[in-house]
Amino acid sequence: MLNPLRTIMAPASIAIVGASNNATKMGTLQCLNLIHSGFGGDILPVHPKEKTVLGKTAYPSIEKLPYAPELAVLVVPTGLVPGMLEHFGHIGTRFAVIITAGFKETGPKGRALEEEVNRIARKYGIRFLGPNCLGIINTWLPLNMTVTPVADLKGALSLASQSGTYVAQTLPYLHRHGIALSKAISVGNEANIDIVDCLEYLGDDEDTKAIGLYIEGIRRASRFLEVARAVSRKKPIVAQYVGGTEAGARSGSSHTGAMAGPDYVYEGLFQQAGIIRVDTIEEVYKIGWALASQPPLKGKRIAILTNSGGPGTAMAMTCNKHGLEVPEFSEAVQAKVAKHIPGHASPRNPVDLTFHVEMGSITRDIPTVLMQAPEIDGLIIHGIMDTGFFHVIFPLIKDMVGVPQEDFMKMVRLDLEPLTAMPGTYGKPLMISSFFDHNDHAVQTFHAHGVPVFDSPEKAARAMGALYAYHRRSGMPVTQDEPLDVPPKARKQVQSTAVFDEYSAKQLLRAYGIPTVREALAHSLEEALEAAVHIGYPVVLKVCDPAIQHKTEQGLVKLDIEDNQALMKAFRSLRRKVPRAPILVAQMLTGEKEFMAGVNSYPGFPPCVLFGLGGVFTEALKDFSIRLAPLSRHDARDMMEAITARALLGAYRGMPAVDVDAMADLLIALGTLALHFPEIAEIDLNPIIVVDGAPKVADALIVKRASE
Amino acid sequence: MLNPLRTIMAPASIAIVGASNNATKMGTLQCLNLIHSGFGGDILPVHPKEKTVLGKTAYPSIEKLPYAPELAVLVVPTGLVPGMLEHFGHIGTRFAVIITAGFKETGPKGRALEEEVNRIARKYGIRFLGPNCLGIINTWLPLNMTVTPVADLKGALSLASQSGTYVAQTLPYLHRHGIALSKAISVGNEANIDIVDCLEYLGDDEDTKAIGLYIEGIRRASRFLEVARAVSRKKPIVAQYVGGTEAGARSGSSHTGAMAGPDYVYEGLFQQAGIIRVDTIEEVYKIGWALASQPPLKGKRIAILTNSGGPGTAMAMTCNKHGLEVPEFSEAVQAKVAKHIPGHASPRNPVDLTFHVEMGSITRDIPTVLMQAPEIDGLIIHGIMDTGFFHVIFPLIKDMVGVPQEDFMKMVRLDLEPLTAMPGTYGKPLMISSFFDHNDHAVQTFHAHGVPVFDSPEKAARAMGALYAYHRRSGMPVTQDEPLDVPPKARKQVQSTAVFDEYSAKQLLRAYGIPTVREALAHSLEEALEAAVHIGYPVVLKVCDPAIQHKTEQGLVKLDIEDNQALMKAFRSLRRKVPRAPILVAQMLTGEKEFMAGVNSYPGFPPCVLFGLGGVFTEALKDFSIRLAPLSRHDARDMMEAITARALLGAYRGMPAVDVDAMADLLIALGTLALHFPEIAEIDLNPIIVVDGAPKVADALIVKRASE
Repeated sequence: MLNPLRTIMAPASIAIVGASNNATKMGTLQCLNLIHSGFGGDILPVHPKEKTVLGKTAYPSIEKLPYAPELAVLVVPTGLVPGMLEHFGHIGTRFAVIITAGFKETGPKGRALEEEVNRIARKYGIRFLGPNCLGIINTWLPLNMTVTPVADLKGALSLASQSGTYVAQTLPYLHRHGIALSKAISVGNEANIDIVDCLEYLGDDEDTKAIGLYIEGIRRASRFLEVARAVSRKKPIVAQYVGGTEAGARSGSSHTGAMAGPDYVYEGLFQQAGIIRVDTIEEVYKIGWALASQPPLKGKRIAILTNSGGPGTAMAMTCNKHGLEVPEFSEAVQAKVAKHIPGHASPRNPVDLTFHVEMGSITRDIPTVLMQAPEIDGLIIHGIMDTGFFHVIFPLIKDMVGVPQEDFMKMVRLDLEPLTAMPGTYGKPLMISSFFDHNDHAVQTFHAHGVPVFDSPEKAARAMGALYAYHRRSGMPVTQDEPLDVPPKARKQVQSTAVFDEYSAKQLLRAYGIPTVREALAHSLEEALEAAVHIGYPVVLKVCDPAIQHKTEQGLVKLDIEDNQALMKAFRSLRRKVPRAPILVAQMLTGEKEFMAGVNSYPGFPPCVLFGLGGVFTEALKDFSIRLAPLSRHDARDMMEAITARALLGAYRGMPAVDVDAMADLLIALGTLALHFPEIAEIDLNPIIVVDGAPKVADALIVKRASE
Repeated sequence: MLNPLRTIMAPASIAIVGASNNATKMGTLQCLNLIHSGFGGDILPVHPKEKTVLGKTAYPSIEKLPYAPELAVLVVPTGLVPGMLEHFGHIGTRFAVIITAGFKETGPKGRALEEEVNRIARKYGIRFLGPNCLGIINTWLPLNMTVTPVADLKGALSLASQSGTYVAQTLPYLHRHGIALSKAISVGNEANIDIVDCLEYLGDDEDTKAIGLYIEGIRRASRFLEVARAVSRKKPIVAQYVGGTEAGARSGSSHTGAMAGPDYVYEGLFQQAGIIRVDTIEEVYKIGWALASQPPLKGKRIAILTNSGGPGTAMAMTCNKHGLEVPEFSEAVQAKVAKHIPGHASPRNPVDLTFHVEMGSITRDIPTVLMQAPEIDGLIIHGIMDTGFFHVIFPLIKDMVGVPQEDFMKMVRLDLEPLTAMPGTYGKPLMISSFFDHNDHAVQTFHAHGVPVFDSPEKAARAMGALYAYHRRSGMPVTQDEPLDVPPKARKQVQSTAVFDEYSAKQLLRAYGIPTVREALAHSLEEALEAAVHIGYPVVLKVCDPAIQHKTEQGLVKLDIEDNQALMKAFRSLRRKVPRAPILVAQMLTGEKEFMAGVNSYPGFPPCVLFGLGGVFTEALKDFSIRLAPLSRHDARDMMEAITARALLGAYRGMPAVDVDAMADLLIALGTLALHFPEIAEIDLNPIIVVDGAPKVADALIVKRASE
């Protein structure tokens, strides 16, 4: 099925209802932008009274339109939306953008109205954006129906946002920062088309080089993952997620009715999808722009060139923090650099020219050396002083220079064309840091040539770090194992078990090949003795009753039973406390490393697999990672690497390394199991004891969903 | 002794050597700024040839100056500095700013020259800033000797920086962001006056409301801590530290010869000093400005008011991340807010007015309600649309409004005086988030009235978080326990012990009241048996020889010895492996919680005390905190709270809570011990086993410094 955004983003004709000749109305502003953006197709305003709206022939009603426009845009009072959509459906329009707010985000009444809109859309096969959105921008058509004019056409960065502000009110901000958009989509309440559709569309769009997302909550997490994983192999995706705290979730839900989840679930999702996560909308834009405008970074070795030690040091530190190296140059490169620096400056890396008004070395000579050097993968420059600097000092020196300010400014303008050509010529990214703004000639030149400029040194280095994150990610495999069929035994067991006890839980795990301790269920002392001998001492005895919680604290677990005599004593002690429940006899494992794995459920998400440090520390350290099922082998390895205590996976203080393939098998199987049985709400395997490197589940909890 | 900066920052007269009538020279630019900044004292240029420099009478040599100026400024070739300083010393000048670079930061030759300068300064009692600095700014005098003009006078934020750029080249940037400085000091190589002197001076300066620091390395860490701790109780300090990575340290040392240390040591220092640490220079400025310009935040309850859900949600999430609450308003406040919002907007918190051109509610009505509400401690607003917005849309609507752009802009200008007065009136901080810049009338108005404006919603929330961090910090006690005298036994022991073994290490600990396991040293089986009976079984046997490493891996530790028979067997086994070394017989403790504590040494720092998770996990988790000795009781408690696994300190999974007072005693004593004996380079107590809440050191390593 064709992505509906292919038509919505490039319609042949647009009808707009809600525009008038009153400039204070939002619909009017949007129609004005539509007209002035240079859109080449028909624009058909619908207005009950006016003959013309904003110079365009207006039609008194939808029915009176001369033909069915490809796209309908509604900026009307909430109550009118369903009827109008019905009219458009009736005349044959199949795509719409519903700007109007007041739906799901406002409560039950609005929710009902949104359902009514959905019903009508389904009836006519209408696909629509919104409601409660701010429209779309396609600078390649061009087409802009937001409230704010767009200044830069045919850019490389595309946006999809759950906040309209971020694709409309920020347009002047983007222009001042030299960021040129390709496409921008405000998704609003996502009643029909959602951010996943946007991602898919932008992934296929040839004029989109990088994608920025603003996310308050994702409804179709599995599909999002699938699409994002595929798209992120073709082009970088940057995303901000803001729903992960109490206030964030509450605010988001009252804004677009978004369904937020804990921050760590989205962290896992983004990792798995190959999405570069950022913390601010500024980073969505600026890091997105760096990714969209620059050649990919092919290694981690960054050269830093400045006229001041402070910015150089801050950039070096930030590079290191993001996994980049700022290596000392080879002697050969140092010798070449040294030719262009003042006596007391450093040719190592960072190169610090110190305060230096002659600009040729920083804008041309040294960049050429560094871009040509095979030992360097990318370049950051701080300290180019152009008209911005001279504008500030002109009042001081005007008597000495003896020419008018305007002429002087022309004289000091730098020739930066050679520098701006370097990323293309050498295939290496260039980032500029400057405390001057868009009024500075150098900054303007970089903007005009698509070289990203950052107003703080650390931001330039941070952006380079994002290019590196994309580089590392893009080389990684995404193969998914063939999905396992449901083991027949497992199906039978899950269907027949209302409440899993520890024993039955591990039985189910074993059906999926998950290694557990050897164990048996005993209903009598005799059975227990027999089981212990069969399993081999030492063993553990545990009361096996899912209704009893905190068994350890209640003395219902007996550890380290070494022989028949001790077993008898322990068994009788348990029987005194719990007369009837069966007793689990299990192999007593001792391993110094303990991990945990599990499955959690979140609304809108497939089962989420957890991995972390196990045993007594799980709660205290909260050191775990999360991925959405199904897990690829790479996901499983990656989530093991993601915990802070990852060093414990390797050989550590005399303990052998963990068999990470076996652990990956376990995590993948856990995801498969959870996908097979949606009735399972939660799985908790803790501890998973590692013996001679091999993980074995020592305790397991499986909880079925409360039936509704 | 009077702080030399009192004179340097407000001299009666300034001689400058290195200024000429050539506008491309740095000294000329600095002299021009000095002249044009409005400095009221005498400015005396020294120039060998010119009769006047920049309109001021010039003197052919230092000797020919009409009198000894209070301050000498040198911007001359490196080699001339010592001689000129000598001349100034000779005529009686006692304060200098040495701008000239090429000293310590360039290598051995420059280092020798810097020592020469120091020698001359000592000879005459000269105190000086630099070398390799960019000068000073005092906007209250006014006085500016940097290379860049300063636009705003009598500001509230002061800076001290180890990078000259950050107090000079960034001045136009600060002006565009509405940030007005009080004082700014570039410290350069800190050959004489250092950043500690600056902090002390700025702490006492009444016109400084907050202090921003840029740090590449601190030479006098103990004194820095002492001064910062006192200053941070009077006014907030914000600091960026950039030396904590390999490239950062290398870059810093080639820049000003700064002595960097691992990032976590500075993290500990800043925590202990009550300094708010930030990651970027932008935050030094903008968060510094928020702290300098706004009334203190007195609680954690923040109201957020926007015209768009996206920024509101992002701010809510960022507030939560920084410990702030964004509580739902009480019904009473919701009712008051509801009067001023459109139908489908939310009166809860964040308040989202949605796209709304009428500005009275966001600039006046709702802020008044929220500032007056006792349930709210601070307010953030995003979405005020003033000339910035109308400037962008004017081209669209010009035909409809029918007045020239200039007149129209006057019409749309908002009256923001009531809003800017609110922080003062209600004693609550206000932060503004806006995507418009200094060309927008609203932004200009906020700048003019000292209300901080942030160009991204998250930054406004982050700044409020910094105000909260300062609020929490300022209520904390700083009492230091009376310093303990050196226990005579301890002094004797340290002097007589060349290499500490485990037993002697714990002896020394006990002399400081640090609880250890009961133990004794045995040289024969008989002594071992006697000791075990005295200590009480179970015991541990360990070969006690500091020359032997990795004892556990070599089988030189025997655990859990339950009786005489087992002891005999274990003793003999050890004797077979190590025939001669004494055997340590120690109480066998079992506790489920294990911590570690220690002391590390870093150049320029006093002994640093560490606390963290102990046992096998120490290395893998790297979960530790660090503080500089001597520790206050608050420091000790604070560093316990600083580890990720802090939950383990409380009652946890059936284990009793740790006696944190006892643990604090241990940490304080460890710091005292290390301060008493500078010859001790390293202490490592791991594990500290907690038994019934009480910490007991089970293993200890003390390493003396290699004598030189």
